[in-house]
Amino acid sequence: MPQISSKGQLMPPSPIRKLVPYAEEAKRKGRTVYHLNIGQPDIETPQIVLDGLKKVDLKVIEYSHSAGNESYRKGLAKYYDKYGIKITHNDIIVTTGGSEALVFGFMTCLDQGDEVIIPEPFYANYNGFAVMAGVTVKPITASIENGYALPPIEEFEKLITPKTKAILICNPGNPTGYLYSKKELEALRDIVKKHDLFLFADEVYREFCYDGAQPYSAMNLEGIENNVILVDSVSKRYSMCGARIGALITRNQEVIAAALKFGQARLSPPTFGQIASEIALDTPEIYFENVVNEYVQRRNILVDGLNKIEGVMCPKPGGAFYAMARLPIDNSDKFCQWMLEEFEFENATVMMAPATGFYASKGLGQNEVRVAYVLNQEALKKSIEILDAALKVYPGRTINVAKKATTV
Amino acid sequence: MPQISSKGQLMPPSPIRKLVPYAEEAKRKGRTVYHLNIGQPDIETPQIVLDGLKKVDLKVIEYSHSAGNESYRKGLAKYYDKYGIKITHNDIIVTTGGSEALVFGFMTCLDQGDEVIIPEPFYANYNGFAVMAGVTVKPITASIENGYALPPIEEFEKLITPKTKAILICNPGNPTGYLYSKKELEALRDIVKKHDLFLFADEVYREFCYDGAQPYSAMNLEGIENNVILVDSVSKRYSMCGARIGALITRNQEVIAAALKFGQARLSPPTFGQIASEIALDTPEIYFENVVNEYVQRRNILVDGLNKIEGVMCPKPGGAFYAMARLPIDNSDKFCQWMLEEFEFENATVMMAPATGFYASKGLGQNEVRVAYVLNQEALKKSIEILDAALKVYPGRTINVAKKATTV
Repeated sequence: MPQISSKGQLMPPSPIRKLVPYAEEAKRKGRTVYHLNIGQPDIETPQIVLDGLKKVDLKVIEYSHSAGNESYRKGLAKYYDKYGIKITHNDIIVTTGGSEALVFGFMTCLDQGDEVIIPEPFYANYNGFAVMAGVTVKPITASIENGYALPPIEEFEKLITPKTKAILICNPGNPTGYLYSKKELEALRDIVKKHDLFLFADEVYREFCYDGAQPYSAMNLEGIENNVILVDSVSKRYSMCGARIGALITRNQEVIAAALKFGQARLSPPTFGQIASEIALDTPEIYFENVVNEYVQRRNILVDGLNKIEGVMCPKPGGAFYAMARLPIDNSDKFCQWMLEEFEFENATVMMAPATGFYASKGLGQNEVRVAYVLNQEALKKSIEILDAALKVYPGRTINVAKKATTV
Repeated sequence: MPQISSKGQLMPPSPIRKLVPYAEEAKRKGRTVYHLNIGQPDIETPQIVLDGLKKVDLKVIEYSHSAGNESYRKGLAKYYDKYGIKITHNDIIVTTGGSEALVFGFMTCLDQGDEVIIPEPFYANYNGFAVMAGVTVKPITASIENGYALPPIEEFEKLITPKTKAILICNPGNPTGYLYSKKELEALRDIVKKHDLFLFADEVYREFCYDGAQPYSAMNLEGIENNVILVDSVSKRYSMCGARIGALITRNQEVIAAALKFGQARLSPPTFGQIASEIALDTPEIYFENVVNEYVQRRNILVDGLNKIEGVMCPKPGGAFYAMARLPIDNSDKFCQWMLEEFEFENATVMMAPATGFYASKGLGQNEVRVAYVLNQEALKKSIEILDAALKVYPGRTINVAKKATTV
């Protein structure tokens, strides 16, 4: 039997999906599992999209242009204009999800062995895209103590080698929910400019900024117009993850020309997803207002609830729909598995993502989990109740251990 | 401005799509352009799919399982059973087109610098997938003289090095239309077994076999069950290229497990495409009978017509919907461009794919073009008439040059 490649072996399994078999087993036992582990929102896709798709009248479901339908790209350019991002449809390649935009971006800009610096914790699949492109990830650890703010720029400076080709940020952040300030982005701009690096900015959660904060796009950083590559997606914006439509956006026409060759090889992004995405451009503002209101309420319930549990620390996220929480536990992988395998409270349990998968530095994230507030408020309240109960009896808990030893 | 990667530079542009600007210019001049250059059929998608999609009632367009919806994979397993291919849904990963299946397959099985042997002329995008995966293509030249039959197995043997990890075939072939016999496939089986290689079999044109021929799948070659990786797609089968749904299929569970990690990184294949593909499984047989009849008539018109032109040779393809033709020309790239830029016959011209893009060996394919019979019979007749007229006046023609010189 022939051997699979080293790349195939190195490729990390999804830390978010790897606990699925335990969740399935819990459900087989008749338990309710509250899924706070994945970024699949329960929010409805805009009605305008659902209605519009029923009216699509095609005779042949054809390939589109490899860069995506021109009408959709022109519509997208107008969408960005609303956020003060001035681009044309020639700066856009429509991709199969934000995932493909990152793969094309890495392959276009970095060679085998080149390095990309990423503040950690970061979206776990960046690791997978790096393996696919043969790129080395150099993490810089952000701290839960200041809500995962951008690490000091000197820390970036220390990591730069002749192999460093890019910095990648996610803003607002998955898994941290941290929203970078203009000042933080300008500090990044300076180092990007100094070393002439690419700056990949994953801004797929743009719509989800809270407490009056406005997102500042890396595309608007002056002086690095040819360095910035925006990665975007309709998945979260319109709650249509299954459309698999994203975009790679840059004013750097060399990057566009090269990335388009990768696009041509795979022929075109999905036709129905593009149609849905183009319809979605007309989603009324009230949709986003309602969604943001809902997320803010959920966030407050979740964060306040978590912080009331003894030994738990959960910084309040400024955007996206995730929160990172430090728990009084020995090992987040073990704990999340134990929650599914061993624990139940009123015949229910909670599924979370162990934070270890969001760190590239080995050993970090052992006492942290990511929770996605993608369930309704009642489910979130119930989840907190379950987690509180679980932390009281988890064998690997790290507080009150002595006390327990004496009471037993 | 930061430099793009060597990979970005190496990535080949699509030889099929690179002439598009010249075609657009011809259209701007008011000329009709007959598109025989791409594999986008004009055949209608089955009505059952078009109707079914209008009835889809989703509230949230969600991610699917990373391996594809289980119900679809189970349906696919039944579809293969009809072709005598015995597999279960656990042997299938649904991909975003056949393209993604090849990229996942290459990355799972071959490392940077590993070699894959491919009979040429071959589907041009294999080059792109190889660049993406860092894999080296080693071509073996098939000959137009015997209709692009499998080259002698000794030729494969000569190319095998310690870096050789796989052989890739397309059957029925794009661009040749050649249908490998069971005997040819068994010869491949023997060498695959001897050197314990992977055998990638791109069988996306399975439904399009003519003159009573039955396709023989590489999946049915005995003794190499863990070596064969089937690449498939619904694009051509149901004329729904824009669905972007394919599949990677193998009984090798190590390959499935590793390929699924690549699948998890990109989350899921498109939701609507999967729904369409699952509905399409119930396409009535009469649909395929009609389509095959139509293609046979088109093929006969095209091949007979081409062979009647002086100096043209076009082997009759046994499958798919392409034909390769040798033309009396100096340079197929120049000729195809000239057809769009300089030539018109009754205000119309023909767009073809220069065969140079289908050969990895430099210098081959200069007097060959690929024509796709994806237009109706009238358009094909017209196209032949145009090509005949063009070959009479093309400045770089290679026959009757002396004669012309004396008559001028």
